[in-house]
Amino acid sequence: MNAEIISVGTELLLGQVVNTDAAIVAQELSALGISLLHTSVVGDNPQRLKDAVETALARSDLLIMTGGLGPTTDDLTKETTAAAAGKKLVLHPESLDRIKNYFNGALMTPNQEKQAWLPEGCTVLQNDNGTAPGCAFTAENGCVVIMLPGPPSELAPMLKNRAVPFLRQLQDSVIVSHNIHIYGLGEAPVAQIMDDCMDGENPTLAPYAKEGECMLRVTAKAQTPEAADRLCQPLMEEIFRRLGAYIYSVDVETLEEVVVAELAAHGKTLAVAESCTGGLLAKRITDVPGASQVFQMGCVTYANAAKEALLFVPHETLEAHGAVSEETARAMAEGIVRRAGSDIGVGITGIAGPDGGTAEKPVGTIYIALSDGRQTWVAKRAPIGRTKSRDWHRHCAASQALDMVRRYVLGLDVLPKP
Amino acid sequence: MNAEIISVGTELLLGQVVNTDAAIVAQELSALGISLLHTSVVGDNPQRLKDAVETALARSDLLIMTGGLGPTTDDLTKETTAAAAGKKLVLHPESLDRIKNYFNGALMTPNQEKQAWLPEGCTVLQNDNGTAPGCAFTAENGCVVIMLPGPPSELAPMLKNRAVPFLRQLQDSVIVSHNIHIYGLGEAPVAQIMDDCMDGENPTLAPYAKEGECMLRVTAKAQTPEAADRLCQPLMEEIFRRLGAYIYSVDVETLEEVVVAELAAHGKTLAVAESCTGGLLAKRITDVPGASQVFQMGCVTYANAAKEALLFVPHETLEAHGAVSEETARAMAEGIVRRAGSDIGVGITGIAGPDGGTAEKPVGTIYIALSDGRQTWVAKRAPIGRTKSRDWHRHCAASQALDMVRRYVLGLDVLPKP
Repeated sequence: MNAEIISVGTELLLGQVVNTDAAIVAQELSALGISLLHTSVVGDNPQRLKDAVETALARSDLLIMTGGLGPTTDDLTKETTAAAAGKKLVLHPESLDRIKNYFNGALMTPNQEKQAWLPEGCTVLQNDNGTAPGCAFTAENGCVVIMLPGPPSELAPMLKNRAVPFLRQLQDSVIVSHNIHIYGLGEAPVAQIMDDCMDGENPTLAPYAKEGECMLRVTAKAQTPEAADRLCQPLMEEIFRRLGAYIYSVDVETLEEVVVAELAAHGKTLAVAESCTGGLLAKRITDVPGASQVFQMGCVTYANAAKEALLFVPHETLEAHGAVSEETARAMAEGIVRRAGSDIGVGITGIAGPDGGTAEKPVGTIYIALSDGRQTWVAKRAPIGRTKSRDWHRHCAASQALDMVRRYVLGLDVLPKP
Repeated sequence: MNAEIISVGTELLLGQVVNTDAAIVAQELSALGISLLHTSVVGDNPQRLKDAVETALARSDLLIMTGGLGPTTDDLTKETTAAAAGKKLVLHPESLDRIKNYFNGALMTPNQEKQAWLPEGCTVLQNDNGTAPGCAFTAENGCVVIMLPGPPSELAPMLKNRAVPFLRQLQDSVIVSHNIHIYGLGEAPVAQIMDDCMDGENPTLAPYAKEGECMLRVTAKAQTPEAADRLCQPLMEEIFRRLGAYIYSVDVETLEEVVVAELAAHGKTLAVAESCTGGLLAKRITDVPGASQVFQMGCVTYANAAKEALLFVPHETLEAHGAVSEETARAMAEGIVRRAGSDIGVGITGIAGPDGGTAEKPVGTIYIALSDGRQTWVAKRAPIGRTKSRDWHRHCAASQALDMVRRYVLGLDVLPKP
């Protein structure tokens, strides 16, 4: 099944909005095993939209339209696509009721009704997060057409909950994927370690780079989700055998989610002291709803005086070794445990750049310490290869700190053996 | 001049990468006054790429290709595009030298040389951030073709520093835009206030929504940048007259950049105490290089005990009014000034959700206080309209705090009059 996406909206052609819709749809199609061969963007222009739809209907088995389903005269997707596919628009009373309810007594302008006009005989895809419903139908020439609203907050759930089940029905098999998230080994070494498993056809195995991390995706195809899952299992066990403690999750997206969940599961509390990451570590932990159960305190101590006063870092340590040193990181981690009374404390100090680097301590030199009040571990990050951005150094240092917390809580080596 | 973008890469069709390249190019074209009518994505497939290029050459005056310039056999853009445009590839010795230097004695694989083969007679666009050069040339049928590398870190500077000057030469006029960033008024009221100025043709005026903020863009076209700038001035003055203190910058992207610069210019120091924003405010301030000059300390005090111990928030205040209250925010701001010895302190406490809301204090209730040690101001945010995400509440609260700091430092009303 060859698919194509057309995204509609002048704002995309002006660069005001990045086309995340296309990436969201592409990911779901890939997970379904549907080949996406083209994506394109057209503005709110009837003739160019008509040309693009006609080309797509002629060359693709599945056409997914995103955007242009709204109430204004700019929103041309339904009229244009239905006409090109040989369908009339008819009023869908149930959708009209939903739109009326959505406005809930508040002023509903007459043009809102336009959104309830849908191609005759279509499957309506209900919008649980906005007013414009989506739809799915088969064009006269046999091409399957799906229309989805433009705002990603409406498109993503409609795609996942309504369009994907519709597409599954068209297929004689299902695809199941699992993402194995890895910290501490890059994409290249992971690919090398798993090299002999990369050529399988069902399940398949593919590595992906993430910012300072990497991921393996195991994908299998079968008659049922359960059968596909069973096909994945032996390969996943082999991956766990080879990569062990470097794996931080299966299908959980971020280190911070894993860390908050494991802290809660083990009844441990955390506090963090940050210099160069400047609150990013605390921010990432508190991105996770419910972090308040395990996160006690964060101190952003940029100034040396703050390190001394808040974190009990000895003046002599700062004098003798400097703010960016193993000793200062250690004292920060131990100090935040003492200050917060938490089970675990983290201290981060370093040079995130772009300025402030020296020959001995170039930009990217960052020390990360973890203390439980009895023992303290310190990791050193040194810059390698191409110059990286301030954001990159901060992000990677926060990730490494999270991984150290994960390892500590799970009883693994806090610092992985080289 | 009608333009078109073709982005090349199977990773874009698998949804592994969002097509930010197209948005970056679209923005620059928009700023140049060039109409972008189509963008599309094709995978690393010679036949489909050839079809897409031929269609584009036939219908557009300018074709910009992104991606597929690298050393591997997947990288087909140059061969395919040059062939379709009626050009041979020839070795560009200077680019080959640059590539050799880039590897700087390290192992350079033979396929790297491929990148130095460019369409005959082209203008070479040097790559200052990677190995693959870009190029610009005119196809046999008169369409101007520009090829840029795929990684945004290479594409963005090459576009700005090399391709945009090339495109300016093709135009008989230049476009100048200024972005006026506004905090505290939404897109709708701003559009209403400026309504009578929206129909101008040169300069034009257009409003844009940003997350919790908005922006006005003034754009003018003239023979020289100076003349275009002069055309913008009267309209910009009128905008300043009407929106005054709500304008936080012209052409500076973020509130945090403005705040760090104004604190430095006024010799003031800042410390922040965060509850529900969990470090996000400190993180945003320290995103700005050089923030260490003005940012003294941040405390993330999730737990009440931390608010008492670190920030001197009286136990009775927490008991009587709760952690989410005007009184607690006030005590946090005053406490952090005392703790840090800074000129200004900010305290934020609230309910970011998704859980923890009550009937009196629903999710989105957030108090933001600013103190200078003598006087304290407190703003209250209450949820309005549709349910918003945890990220949204946290982002908007941090933005409001930054705006209060900006207003204080500039001697404006800290809390805008309603």
